[in-house]
Amino acid sequence: MGALRISIAQLDYHTGNFEYNAQKIISNINAAKEEGIDLIVFSELCVCGYPPRDFLEFADFIDQCSRAVEEIAQHCVGIAAIVGAPAVNPVVEGKDLFNAAFFLADGKIKDVRHKTLLPNYDIFDEYRYFEPNSTFNIVEYKGCRIALTICEDLWNINENPMYVLNPMNELAKQQPHVMINIAASPFNKHQAETRTQVMKDNVMKYNIPLFYVNHIGAQTQLIFDGGSMVLDANAEVIDTFAFFREERRSYTLNPDHKDIKAHKPTTARQTGVMERIHNALVLGVREYFIKQGFSKAILGLSGGIDSAVVLALAVEALGNENVRAVLLPSEFSSRHSIDDAVALAKNLDVQYDIISIKEAYNSIYHSVQPQFEGLPFGIAEENMQARVRGVILMAMSNKFGYILLNTSNKSEMAVGYGTLYGDMCGGLSVIGDLYKTEVFQLAAYINREQEVIPVHTITKPPSAELRPDQKDSDSLPDYAVLDAVLERYIEKRKSPKEIIASGFDEALVKRILKMVNTNEWKRMQAPPVLRVSAKAFGPGRRMPIVAKYLS
Amino acid sequence: MGALRISIAQLDYHTGNFEYNAQKIISNINAAKEEGIDLIVFSELCVCGYPPRDFLEFADFIDQCSRAVEEIAQHCVGIAAIVGAPAVNPVVEGKDLFNAAFFLADGKIKDVRHKTLLPNYDIFDEYRYFEPNSTFNIVEYKGCRIALTICEDLWNINENPMYVLNPMNELAKQQPHVMINIAASPFNKHQAETRTQVMKDNVMKYNIPLFYVNHIGAQTQLIFDGGSMVLDANAEVIDTFAFFREERRSYTLNPDHKDIKAHKPTTARQTGVMERIHNALVLGVREYFIKQGFSKAILGLSGGIDSAVVLALAVEALGNENVRAVLLPSEFSSRHSIDDAVALAKNLDVQYDIISIKEAYNSIYHSVQPQFEGLPFGIAEENMQARVRGVILMAMSNKFGYILLNTSNKSEMAVGYGTLYGDMCGGLSVIGDLYKTEVFQLAAYINREQEVIPVHTITKPPSAELRPDQKDSDSLPDYAVLDAVLERYIEKRKSPKEIIASGFDEALVKRILKMVNTNEWKRMQAPPVLRVSAKAFGPGRRMPIVAKYLS
Repeated sequence: MGALRISIAQLDYHTGNFEYNAQKIISNINAAKEEGIDLIVFSELCVCGYPPRDFLEFADFIDQCSRAVEEIAQHCVGIAAIVGAPAVNPVVEGKDLFNAAFFLADGKIKDVRHKTLLPNYDIFDEYRYFEPNSTFNIVEYKGCRIALTICEDLWNINENPMYVLNPMNELAKQQPHVMINIAASPFNKHQAETRTQVMKDNVMKYNIPLFYVNHIGAQTQLIFDGGSMVLDANAEVIDTFAFFREERRSYTLNPDHKDIKAHKPTTARQTGVMERIHNALVLGVREYFIKQGFSKAILGLSGGIDSAVVLALAVEALGNENVRAVLLPSEFSSRHSIDDAVALAKNLDVQYDIISIKEAYNSIYHSVQPQFEGLPFGIAEENMQARVRGVILMAMSNKFGYILLNTSNKSEMAVGYGTLYGDMCGGLSVIGDLYKTEVFQLAAYINREQEVIPVHTITKPPSAELRPDQKDSDSLPDYAVLDAVLERYIEKRKSPKEIIASGFDEALVKRILKMVNTNEWKRMQAPPVLRVSAKAFGPGRRMPIVAKYLS
Repeated sequence: MGALRISIAQLDYHTGNFEYNAQKIISNINAAKEEGIDLIVFSELCVCGYPPRDFLEFADFIDQCSRAVEEIAQHCVGIAAIVGAPAVNPVVEGKDLFNAAFFLADGKIKDVRHKTLLPNYDIFDEYRYFEPNSTFNIVEYKGCRIALTICEDLWNINENPMYVLNPMNELAKQQPHVMINIAASPFNKHQAETRTQVMKDNVMKYNIPLFYVNHIGAQTQLIFDGGSMVLDANAEVIDTFAFFREERRSYTLNPDHKDIKAHKPTTARQTGVMERIHNALVLGVREYFIKQGFSKAILGLSGGIDSAVVLALAVEALGNENVRAVLLPSEFSSRHSIDDAVALAKNLDVQYDIISIKEAYNSIYHSVQPQFEGLPFGIAEENMQARVRGVILMAMSNKFGYILLNTSNKSEMAVGYGTLYGDMCGGLSVIGDLYKTEVFQLAAYINREQEVIPVHTITKPPSAELRPDQKDSDSLPDYAVLDAVLERYIEKRKSPKEIIASGFDEALVKRILKMVNTNEWKRMQAPPVLRVSAKAFGPGRRMPIVAKYLS
């Protein structure tokens, strides 16, 4: 083969928006063609967006997607392209679709390759829709023998492989010159290292270069960080794409396949975990709005750290002119809470309202007096305050077209320390995948250059302020302990015995785990949570509500 | 072989409650043994309950389950038993578990068979956890060659098979005398006919008798109706178990395998669709409470048909002494609504309260006046009324330990004609899988012997009563038309073009489908819905929130 000029397009797609996705793909093909590129590669299921979820069960959705692929193919004259889209399975036995990579050249579909390993864990449901591939053939183009695989196909390379098959083992028998992997690999805070290691492991095993292309963008809960990369045959990462940003970069693969030259060499720097989380959440918020045609957010600002962090992220995502904060003090709100909230709103230059809930709360409380007569103040009255706030925030949302941002953190969602239909309201949970201790770290990151969030908001003891002198620590263990136990149970799925053995009090562990399990019913009605960990509440964690285990 | 006495146990299990499940299984084994039974058969994953969902990812959960299987095995002396439980996959490649049938005899585990076909559509997620079986061996017991399969293994027998493999084809080569299928096959309103046909098709194909055992009981959204059955070699259903009820029934399989004798012959009658739905929902409500240790329900009673039907079902499920109705009239509530609601509460002899929302609504409305100043009454104010009701109902729920029953129907959930955090509140959605037209049919069924639900509630035009003289028909098409379009889109997944072609107005169809798609964000926060159709809102229907298709 001669030298092959390859372009990798790391782009942002909109699920079901075939016209938008096809136009973006076509304009990148045209631009690459002008640069003399031979082959341009797009990511997994780019034509329909990832994840399309049950839209894949609609024949019309598949038809529209197939037409878009054909339209894209017509632009592939004098250049080849690889795009991801579902392909109809012509065999009657098995599922009706494949997750496919279409190789487009000469104005038509020249070849199609199917995904073999279908992820079906955590947030993935691919076996719900797709038949696994069982035939293995490289793609030849301009003398270059390409082992073309899709995302998970390269991930069965650890000590406890999830699949019995390894598609690259089959393709390697056909002496490919290069691997190309098209992916839709969502962000989590430690994914960049894992992903790089997996790609290196593959190159070390098969000894040929690898082009890896990922999405960027956010799809409801899922955030795609990009981080596409190119590895030479020695498993050196010779180029890493930007994170959280669209980018197209081009390379020349030399005839001996040992050398790849980036046309404009740069390597994106690896960033720290809090910077990643910050950038992921900003992108997640921004795209939740843009892709639904909304621009304006509202949220309740309590003076506490959770709503402070969410407000700072929202301002960065949407602009200060598009964010409105509402302070909703009650008789239990401290003066400093109001002061801290106002100071933050002023620091961020956002419009804010102060709406007292005293009168509305008293009025609702009065409505149920015949029923509550003689009973002491308790959880019901605490929740009532939180719910009155929810009613007011949703009224503002409905009246002015704001999306209400939810400010719950993962620790309180885990143990049910929040009011359903109260502070659990919102269209999107921004920090619902951050434990309270991580919220503090993120606040410190936000304040890295100047005091955006008032320092008092960070240093004062957390409180829901729903009764006099209340502190979170009245009902919950210290957050450092709580979060350590939660992380072992939720992320690592450890047993009570193992958690206790790692140094926690037995009664406390049992109490925490019981709280987690008995609050599934609340979490089920929570807003979608932007996912930044390997195990977020939402579609990646599917627990029964009615069950007895550890509860 | 000699004659084999087989007992089939159709029981109700509690997910994760190993002690309860094991004791129930053991006591049935002991009772069968006393009757001289050779083999007793329990249903799929009976030891841990079905579906265990992500509890399967906890090693401790699997350990507890394995210990329960071993404990059960110790009671199988002088009798054999088949129980369903997860089995650990000893091979490092592939998923870590199998969905297994344990054959217990001589006080130990004699044999294990694994499920081949793993359902992963609608509400099913089995490939998330289990490795598919790939080796096929019959089980021999007392000279009887048993083809032992698990649920879906017999369901790949239609014109568009979902799987490439057919495990019974493999087992048939080993000349089995009989098929035994252990199942966890959830109810839907047409499932009984489908299930019977599938079992007949298998017997007609393989020409041997079949014992089919299913669960009963409810697991959050899923209701298991039982309907276990026995078919002779001629594909005659010689015995059908009760629906929605525990039952153990016994048979003698004669040596020539052509003749099966039921020890106490009866065949459960097939019931009409509305009777089934009624019984399913009553069981679903009852078990949601019992299995969580709750007994008392509360709901808002509007005088309309939805809350009337839910109240009648709740009274049947929990007893009139455990149900409390709350009337929450506003300035827009008509006199007849209050009268109808009171009449119903009296007919059903339930405690009821009348709590006006006028004062609380005015107070909240007043709180936001500085923000709303000069803007006309609109959706925000309508929603505010619904949300004030939600706050009051949840306050009662929190104060007295009631579970709030949600009264939304499928039509309004589909098009978003309901207030999130308002009338969409509740721990359980009782009729959220019934279209409005079906709610009317169910009301007629409830009134089949006497007027339980006041006839005026059934005959008056539906209204949310959130503004003067409001009718549902002001904003929505006629329910007969709406439901017909929704059913084509949701259950049948038809394209707009196909729906229009079947005789509906183009603009109307597009408007309805857009409403369905743009209200995913609301449904995502809805309570769990008792599933009675083949496609209910909830875990069986997974749609993106952020997407553009048809919206």
